[in-house]
Amino acid sequence: LPLRETELIARIRDQARKLRTKSLITGIGDDCAVLRLPRGHELLVTTDFSLEGVHFRREWHPADAVGHRCLTRGLSDIAAMGGEPVAAFLSLAIPADLPQDWIDDFFDGLLRLAKGHKVPLTGGDTAESRDGVLADIVVTGSAPRGKALRRSGARPGDQIYVTGELGGSAGVVRALFAGAEVSPKMKEARRHFYPEPRIEIGRRLSERGLATACIDISDGLSTDLGHICDESRVGAVVEEGRLPLSPLPALLGIGDQSVDLALNGGEDYELLFTARTKTKIPGRIAGMRVTRIGAIVKDKRRRMWIIDRRGEQTPLLPRGWEHFR
Amino acid sequence: LPLRETELIARIRDQARKLRTKSLITGIGDDCAVLRLPRGHELLVTTDFSLEGVHFRREWHPADAVGHRCLTRGLSDIAAMGGEPVAAFLSLAIPADLPQDWIDDFFDGLLRLAKGHKVPLTGGDTAESRDGVLADIVVTGSAPRGKALRRSGARPGDQIYVTGELGGSAGVVRALFAGAEVSPKMKEARRHFYPEPRIEIGRRLSERGLATACIDISDGLSTDLGHICDESRVGAVVEEGRLPLSPLPALLGIGDQSVDLALNGGEDYELLFTARTKTKIPGRIAGMRVTRIGAIVKDKRRRMWIIDRRGEQTPLLPRGWEHFR
Repeated sequence: LPLRETELIARIRDQARKLRTKSLITGIGDDCAVLRLPRGHELLVTTDFSLEGVHFRREWHPADAVGHRCLTRGLSDIAAMGGEPVAAFLSLAIPADLPQDWIDDFFDGLLRLAKGHKVPLTGGDTAESRDGVLADIVVTGSAPRGKALRRSGARPGDQIYVTGELGGSAGVVRALFAGAEVSPKMKEARRHFYPEPRIEIGRRLSERGLATACIDISDGLSTDLGHICDESRVGAVVEEGRLPLSPLPALLGIGDQSVDLALNGGEDYELLFTARTKTKIPGRIAGMRVTRIGAIVKDKRRRMWIIDRRGEQTPLLPRGWEHFR
Repeated sequence: LPLRETELIARIRDQARKLRTKSLITGIGDDCAVLRLPRGHELLVTTDFSLEGVHFRREWHPADAVGHRCLTRGLSDIAAMGGEPVAAFLSLAIPADLPQDWIDDFFDGLLRLAKGHKVPLTGGDTAESRDGVLADIVVTGSAPRGKALRRSGARPGDQIYVTGELGGSAGVVRALFAGAEVSPKMKEARRHFYPEPRIEIGRRLSERGLATACIDISDGLSTDLGHICDESRVGAVVEEGRLPLSPLPALLGIGDQSVDLALNGGEDYELLFTARTKTKIPGRIAGMRVTRIGAIVKDKRRRMWIIDRRGEQTPLLPRGWEHFR
């Protein structure tokens, strides 16, 4: 290994040692990490790339936001299963000329979020990349046997819910593409730069048996609802007037695109779930607003529709998030 | 996602569905894979990059060998812990102009090895890379509670053993760098192009309680023995005359480098382990030759020495495998 990588590994190792959990038996420093799951729990595993130019741009995203968002991608998948995160693994390839400050800030952002969720960083790999920063995050988690929330459990008649607000994260991307400056320090823009995964909400949905199906909104509502329809073999109807629109597009001067962004914008990292009609869903879960936005319907072709404010029903096509190109 | 990635995911999904195991509850198609570990087992996790230009070259390595070697990197880490593989996850970033044939062959190589070890491919991510093929393999495994083989258990007086032969894989690399043509079809060269992870040997070492410490030789004997010394806080003495030298360097016309390659060549994917002197280690385990090559000694500075054929003892420095640049 080049000296730089050895240093990087040593640094990760030091940082990782600071956060010990009950699940962690052996962390970085052996051929594998050794972890223990709670008795009667199943293992959850998710992996997600964060690639420069695809998932972030160094000129738009501060390094600590890139680190934070990288881990959020994994934690949000654990949240969508109603699981508890157990440990994270980071494989990081960096160009030879990447400033050390950038790497430090990246780890600061990632490890701050990890600490907040008590997720130790227990392994990974490092390498030099020929072009751009490439991170691959793996998060392992656990859920009580048979209790993990699937995409496949939605049934005709179920109600469709989302947490929080939609379209804010993609609104920032669209504004940035249009040449606007969006400060990562702007309070409302934190949902884009430092999104919090909805771990606690997912856990409560699973624990209380509230949801029949669940997914996190990473690619956009239309695409992610499409995944639930595909896996559950059902259709869906969404009511435009019920969508919890983020105020962010309006603040950024693109308020006319709010509905499009809420439907097709990605990286909101909110939870989208379904529940039986008779199940009482609280208006807030873990302090976060929960909104009913539509219903699951019987449809062999697994189509989706949207009802606009005038009551007209038209097809809703999966037009989710596109990469940063 | 670009259409190509959607196709790629669909293909992985189809392939992965062909291999069902008892551990696999939910594979590709949800936010996380859901896996079940045998009762009383701990979780093992390892992640390894395989980067074009660093770990392989497209002009030297056939695509199916790249896929095979990518998975071997992960499986070999599970073997070094004495574990059983449970499931694999692949994150793959490919340049836009990569021929479809290359991708097909890559998956053929990876999935053939996976099938041989009954390891389902249960997730991952895909993306377009700006330069070169980048694969990150994650392998999860399990070992009975407290039975995983660590790097940290070697004690002064323990004997040092290796499986198989050393220096063959790096011999191929050195010959390729020197401009030689080495056919992947040459029987003796398979250890470089299609290395078999020593899963069964690791499992037996753990099951029978034979080894006090274990590591796989991925970076080279001198570097990997150094890891055991570091983690176990001991020194080591290796006898040059006892090294099981691969015949491959001689076949490739670089026989004079055999000892150097055995000590410092990487990617042999053999197991290096220590055992108490009184423990009887068979000459073969799971059909593979096992050779005693030296002994662990007390040394606070965790140094290593080599005794040459004339009986002279000199320091052995960690000079393991360097990347393909």
